[in-house]
Amino acid sequence: MTAQANPLLDDRDVAFLLYDVHAAHRLCELPAFAEHSRETFDLVLDASRRLAREVLFPAYRAMDAEPGVLERGRVRVHPAMHAIYPRIVELGLIAAARPPEAGGQSLPETIASMAMGYLMAANGGAAGFAFLTTGAAHLIEAFGSAALKETYMTRMYAGEWTGTMALTEPQAGSSLTDVKTTATPAGDHHLLRGSKVFISGGDQDLTENIVNLALARIDGAPPGIKGVSLFVVPRRRPDVNGGGALVDNDVETAGLIHKIGWRGIPSVILSLGDRGDCHGYLVGEPHKGISYMFQMMNEARILVGFSGAATASVAYHEAVAYARVRVQGRGLRSRDPAMPQVPIIEHADVRRMLLRQKAIVEGALSLVVACSRYADLAAHAVAPEERRVASALLDLLTPIAKSFPAEKGYESNTLSVQVHGGYGYSSEYLPEAWLRDQKLNSIHEGTTGIHGMDLLGRKVIAGGGETLRLFTAEIAAAVARARAAGVSAELCHEVERAVGLIASLTGELAAMGLAGDVERMMLHSADYLELFSLVTIGWQWLLQAAAAREALSRGREPALACFHEGKLCAAEYWIATELPRVPHLAALCRSAEGSYGRMKPEWF
Amino acid sequence: MTAQANPLLDDRDVAFLLYDVHAAHRLCELPAFAEHSRETFDLVLDASRRLAREVLFPAYRAMDAEPGVLERGRVRVHPAMHAIYPRIVELGLIAAARPPEAGGQSLPETIASMAMGYLMAANGGAAGFAFLTTGAAHLIEAFGSAALKETYMTRMYAGEWTGTMALTEPQAGSSLTDVKTTATPAGDHHLLRGSKVFISGGDQDLTENIVNLALARIDGAPPGIKGVSLFVVPRRRPDVNGGGALVDNDVETAGLIHKIGWRGIPSVILSLGDRGDCHGYLVGEPHKGISYMFQMMNEARILVGFSGAATASVAYHEAVAYARVRVQGRGLRSRDPAMPQVPIIEHADVRRMLLRQKAIVEGALSLVVACSRYADLAAHAVAPEERRVASALLDLLTPIAKSFPAEKGYESNTLSVQVHGGYGYSSEYLPEAWLRDQKLNSIHEGTTGIHGMDLLGRKVIAGGGETLRLFTAEIAAAVARARAAGVSAELCHEVERAVGLIASLTGELAAMGLAGDVERMMLHSADYLELFSLVTIGWQWLLQAAAAREALSRGREPALACFHEGKLCAAEYWIATELPRVPHLAALCRSAEGSYGRMKPEWF
Repeated sequence: MTAQANPLLDDRDVAFLLYDVHAAHRLCELPAFAEHSRETFDLVLDASRRLAREVLFPAYRAMDAEPGVLERGRVRVHPAMHAIYPRIVELGLIAAARPPEAGGQSLPETIASMAMGYLMAANGGAAGFAFLTTGAAHLIEAFGSAALKETYMTRMYAGEWTGTMALTEPQAGSSLTDVKTTATPAGDHHLLRGSKVFISGGDQDLTENIVNLALARIDGAPPGIKGVSLFVVPRRRPDVNGGGALVDNDVETAGLIHKIGWRGIPSVILSLGDRGDCHGYLVGEPHKGISYMFQMMNEARILVGFSGAATASVAYHEAVAYARVRVQGRGLRSRDPAMPQVPIIEHADVRRMLLRQKAIVEGALSLVVACSRYADLAAHAVAPEERRVASALLDLLTPIAKSFPAEKGYESNTLSVQVHGGYGYSSEYLPEAWLRDQKLNSIHEGTTGIHGMDLLGRKVIAGGGETLRLFTAEIAAAVARARAAGVSAELCHEVERAVGLIASLTGELAAMGLAGDVERMMLHSADYLELFSLVTIGWQWLLQAAAAREALSRGREPALACFHEGKLCAAEYWIATELPRVPHLAALCRSAEGSYGRMKPEWF
Repeated sequence: MTAQANPLLDDRDVAFLLYDVHAAHRLCELPAFAEHSRETFDLVLDASRRLAREVLFPAYRAMDAEPGVLERGRVRVHPAMHAIYPRIVELGLIAAARPPEAGGQSLPETIASMAMGYLMAANGGAAGFAFLTTGAAHLIEAFGSAALKETYMTRMYAGEWTGTMALTEPQAGSSLTDVKTTATPAGDHHLLRGSKVFISGGDQDLTENIVNLALARIDGAPPGIKGVSLFVVPRRRPDVNGGGALVDNDVETAGLIHKIGWRGIPSVILSLGDRGDCHGYLVGEPHKGISYMFQMMNEARILVGFSGAATASVAYHEAVAYARVRVQGRGLRSRDPAMPQVPIIEHADVRRMLLRQKAIVEGALSLVVACSRYADLAAHAVAPEERRVASALLDLLTPIAKSFPAEKGYESNTLSVQVHGGYGYSSEYLPEAWLRDQKLNSIHEGTTGIHGMDLLGRKVIAGGGETLRLFTAEIAAAVARARAAGVSAELCHEVERAVGLIASLTGELAAMGLAGDVERMMLHSADYLELFSLVTIGWQWLLQAAAAREALSRGREPALACFHEGKLCAAEYWIATELPRVPHLAALCRSAEGSYGRMKPEWF
């Protein structure tokens, strides 16, 4: 019924966000990216969107309908994946953002993650094999020995072997302090024993080896978080007798999780060392596993944000296309049954649902681009001060970039189902599949609740409020840009007022904590996260409104005038309808409204 | 992992809502219900909850996993349903609320629908066969000829034949004006020809016949809504040669919809009259089909509200039980890893998610009980004025009772998944199945958007504001009761202020409409619906707080003290955190914030 092919991400929007809003081409002024230009960026993006549209997306429905199966102890993935995986490897994204010495092209994260965004929008499970491998290899690159890099990282970046993050255990999900897997020293390696659950990509039949990055506790390690170490635990290990042969490393697939989404990539239970022969190779120093993990966590969390935005994006475009061709009903003034029915996009309430999706999708996408850019600057800006500022802003914004696309993306995906009406409730149409995919993003890599606590309990009070001042300054710069571009004064003022409220509220909450009442300070961390997210996305929409006004004033892109008008409408929608909620949320945080604080478990 | 059997609905809460809050036992003072007493009510509820827990719920997972199949043109439902359906019939709920002359027991709707609520919470698909039959038979009872009643209604109420509502066509979903199925007069019947889609229960192998109540257009009928008639279109019709034999009526199952939820009851595409031999029997007068439908619509919509509340309820109880036994992490002050982990219900943010579910579930349930009681009073109160008032309030509140449990129930179901963490994302656990079930409720029986337009465009302006004044008076009575019971003054005041705002806002919007700017009046109908819903549920929570305070003051139920304290907490939560959103929503309605009004289709 949809006339127009789903673009996954809107190419106009990708160019607009990267270049007009966030000036990604200016990253090429940095020595690290000197080999690049907007032209090389666009080549990467073009190759990625083509693969996404021509190869990954057409396989999505079948991979969702027939997830991998566990047979004789090993997982067999969907047959389509065997054709897809080499194409993803060939695309070169796995190591694209790494330096040449690690086998990469020194592409900015800003570009690499957007290119990955197309794959995520097309087929999140298929993309998962690639970006999990990048994340695991990056841990080895950052903290592993030369030998580990040579044996594992190189093959992972080359796409020969895939990688996983093997953190979770049945009793240790959100609480990694409680990891129990043991590691017993045995010469140049440790012998691991334990059980890992929810390991995405923890088994597959695509490559000859799978490299798990696993947390375990070395015998005699201190209790708690400071006794957890990080190991490379391959499915198969190089034979000590040499010759490059691989031998079984006693990593068994003990079960397959029946996930409701991301069904293209299996999630498994791994048993390590059932036969006492599971070798793990220590990454970095003992007992520092969690700190290594956390140093890489921002990267993974921004990727979750991209996934959330991408999953909402593909569904949004499906809903727009459907609303343009599905006719039903007539306008408020023209109920004459002899008149033809109108496309549902003509109904104001359908446009509301579409504009809300647009505001969420493109607001989220703008934020994750901003965060990727901070990541690039944090790693590669020339001035140490600029690196420090970018790093602080990235830390601050990571909980938002991880949780906003997940939570509001889910709402957006729900609206896409709703726009499809009864058809949206059927698995003949895709929106329900994307809804299932999206739900994971509020759970993995830290639940939304945990990100609320991270934001309020750590991030906004970091450096005694210094980071928050940097954030305020960024927003002030955006307001100045918007004013100069001619964005309406009310929108600018609404954003300014909201960010001012964040500053004063945060001071009050921090004072509660300093006075010893941590429970009260933290009670409304969920509302604080919501409030902070609304304002952050308001900031991103103000930037987009500014860039749209600038483009309209330049008048050099008449073909894009409609697109820019749409941007102005979406900015107005978000800032005028969402930001006025901030005072209410602030009042809840401030008053420490106490109903669930007081509610006793036995009262439920 | 859950220690405690899921109660589906909390029996304490059912008794509390029916008797303490809404005084359902006083319905027995009416002549229509004189045969009944709280004891007979409780017998019905007991039988229903027992069947729900012992028979329907244990079959739920299998029926969700293996939906009915279409084989050789007919649907075969899940085998478990063959054992379940006779038990539901035996329970007597199908006709319970009908008078003895129709084969029923004159049970108040208030009790019958709550009894059905247990079945819905246990297994919505299984319950669907029964309540759809009741609805279809009720149409024949209200508008059909004596012959139709004898042949069809009697057997349907007896559970021998099932019933369906066959309204929707591919081009006529929300817009029933556009029904195209034709009906050609042919003596004592009409010959129907057309296609119907999304017909729940439109095929099954449980009973020897299925009776579809179908909309069609008699040849030469006026165009539009005033040319649509209602027909009984059985799957098999009595042979004109008599003898009680049934012959095929040319109703074919042309397809099976692959729904994402409610998988226990098939939803099908029906072809009527492919061979020119589909007999339809006119119900009532020609061209009045839509008005007959609408006279029964409140009933169906309140049932959708019950379904929404029930589906959120069963998931809420699952989440509470899980949160009590799942241990993870430690308190904010006690991070010593040597200490045992705590049940997650100890974490304030988990309690927030549970209390929000409780507030939604029990707030929604209270509202649908209130509406059922208005339905009973509208039909059976002695004084005509009382019937008129109850009928007006029922009309007004139906859009809320239909859409609030659907929309916020979906949010509640989502929170149940979130409380289950990674496990919630797996189909080994049930919360994801209830999430899928719930999504239908915002779509069928009028989408949420349509109910927003119905509320603002018709219901609140009915009688020149008279209905709204009745609503305000009901709330004033609730506030008086709450004050007398000792409920905190702030909560009473918050509700009073919010309802005052509704009155003034509605006047302003109605004035816009009267001045000819209907588009502007209606632009924020979604926000108006949200606002009205928040206040309506606030009213229901104020009533519950009053009843809980009364019970605590009486002090006669010490075993229920925890339950009543929980009620006070949930009331405080809803009124203190949700009602302060009302001024913001009112401002949006009043300003007619214009972003999506202005947004052109080509700007997306």
